[in-house]
Amino acid sequence: MIQDLFTPSVQHSLDLVGIFVFAISGALLAVRKNFDVFGIAVLAEVTALGGGIFRDVIIGAVPPAAFTDLGYFLTPLFAAALVFFLHPEVERINLAVNVFDAAGLGLFCVAGTIKAYEYGLGLTSSAALGLATAVGGGVLRDVLANEVPSLLRWDRDLYAVPAMVGAGIVVLCIHFEALNAYTSALAVITAFVLRLLAITRHWRAPRAWNRRSAVDEKATAQ
Amino acid sequence: MIQDLFTPSVQHSLDLVGIFVFAISGALLAVRKNFDVFGIAVLAEVTALGGGIFRDVIIGAVPPAAFTDLGYFLTPLFAAALVFFLHPEVERINLAVNVFDAAGLGLFCVAGTIKAYEYGLGLTSSAALGLATAVGGGVLRDVLANEVPSLLRWDRDLYAVPAMVGAGIVVLCIHFEALNAYTSALAVITAFVLRLLAITRHWRAPRAWNRRSAVDEKATAQ
Amino acid sequence: MIQDLFTPSVQHSLDLVGIFVFAISGALLAVRKNFDVFGIAVLAEVTALGGGIFRDVIIGAVPPAAFTDLGYFLTPLFAAALVFFLHPEVERINLAVNVFDAAGLGLFCVAGTIKAYEYGLGLTSSAALGLATAVGGGVLRDVLANEVPSLLRWDRDLYAVPAMVGAGIVVLCIHFEALNAYTSALAVITAFVLRLLAITRHWRAPRAWNRRSAVDEKATAQ
Repeated sequence: MIQDLFTPSVQHSLDLVGIFVFAISGALLAVRKNFDVFGIAVLAEVTALGGGIFRDVIIGAVPPAAFTDLGYFLTPLFAAALVFFLHPEVERINLAVNVFDAAGLGLFCVAGTIKAYEYGLGLTSSAALGLATAVGGGVLRDVLANEVPSLLRWDRDLYAVPAMVGAGIVVLCIHFEALNAYTSALAVITAFVLRLLAITRHWRAPRAWNRRSAVDEKATAQ
Repeated sequence: MIQDLFTPSVQHSLDLVGIFVFAISGALLAVRKNFDVFGIAVLAEVTALGGGIFRDVIIGAVPPAAFTDLGYFLTPLFAAALVFFLHPEVERINLAVNVFDAAGLGLFCVAGTIKAYEYGLGLTSSAALGLATAVGGGVLRDVLANEVPSLLRWDRDLYAVPAMVGAGIVVLCIHFEALNAYTSALAVITAFVLRLLAITRHWRAPRAWNRRSAVDEKATAQ
Repeated sequence: MIQDLFTPSVQHSLDLVGIFVFAISGALLAVRKNFDVFGIAVLAEVTALGGGIFRDVIIGAVPPAAFTDLGYFLTPLFAAALVFFLHPEVERINLAVNVFDAAGLGLFCVAGTIKAYEYGLGLTSSAALGLATAVGGGVLRDVLANEVPSLLRWDRDLYAVPAMVGAGIVVLCIHFEALNAYTSALAVITAFVLRLLAITRHWRAPRAWNRRSAVDEKATAQ
């Protein structure tokens, strides 16, 4: 049984930080899409809590934590209010948002993988569900905003890979019975740093081989 | 334990009315999107039952009522058939559809909040889930039709707020141990009337402050 | 109790075949949408497993089979890799993909209906959930790719009807206590053949009556 990697209050604070930064990204997209104040709040909630709710429904942990912990519910509303009043300032600190979002990605892929494993899933499935926890909210955000999910697009910097690496480190540690607060923190930090590197160096994933129009696109896609 | 606010048969009839009118709205959108008869039926089912299915999955009430009560399943098909054959007439009575939809909104936000509370959620979460029950089907309808959810758009009359008020009245009544058939009916009617007022007076919610293009839009958005 | 219609290993092999061909269709759409390699993998997974995960969440069979059976998870990745490297060849054998997809449709509508019935749903609901199992993955695929679900569009060959017929045969057999390996196979084959006929003969479903622009469209829609 894996438990108490961090003290509960530390774990809870880290969760709220992750929820907050994901909510900011949802609220900012809502502003860009010209949604009203309720649209901003809904998109903040969905982005922040969607991945965790999906995970909890899949593993049978119902009602999901998002519906039993008031802090999880109120944090996105706070983020939405902040963006509502201050969004030009928030957009200006885009770098900070990206850094926090990377932190959220790292935290959620690790926490999601561990929770899935605790509920009895195998190692591979736990890692897959950890990945889904980390990226699910963003996918729901883009679907509700009627856009192609950023996760799937080739012209966005790597997002899934850092979370996969983080989740992979966790399941390796579980397999070798080496999961503790230090190795968990290592997994979080690795995913976090990889995501930051992907942003700063514009790492991208390849598209399918031999696309007919590949040559033309290379010329225009820069 | 809250129970038997209305006699079971009254409650069931009210549910079917709500399901029917939501299904009409789904079927009408399907006709406008030029879907075939199965697309009309699917969109009617999803719009009518989506919110309740989401609520039941979240609170662990599986299989959801939509899959155990044949009337819940057949009512949207009946609505779809009606729209299929008579849609010009149905669209002409757009006002009637709006009135019924407002009634469905009121009924579902109240019934959803009460059911969530009965399954052990806190007051705030129950109200949030009641809201999700009322608006969830419409969001799914718009996502399947590949449109930006009407709920999120600033240029639509208030839809979430009446449901929030209805759900809020319910949780206040629960908190003060005053929930009964009369106060529930009051919550339904308040949400219903607020939604009708929002339609007739074109109440809208504000968008984020200081949008750069706000001035231009004000000129064109009237 | 219905069980062991086929030997478990036969059943499992059939499931994997269905998952594989659905994954191919998801991966091909991802290539057409210009997604990167992770987008291809995600769309393959969602298309192949989405319908079954939805069914399992609804009937309370959590964690869903897709998260407990490693083969279910790895098969779509294999399909994604195949499409990634060989997609021009895969598209060229479009006919083969359609045939396999029809086989997947037949297998999933029958298997989904039976599993739903085993978990206590009524006959109508079981058939509806069998249909959802068969078509759900494709709907999720199209929603993630930001397209109107192919299932709902009038200008696509019949897809839901063959699955409905297959699910209908199963519940009739259950009702008359005649469900066995032979009648199940008959249901699969009927759905499969109907879908192939729909493709080759371009069977389509009618749209709503009396659409105002019906005449114009008839001229252009051929």
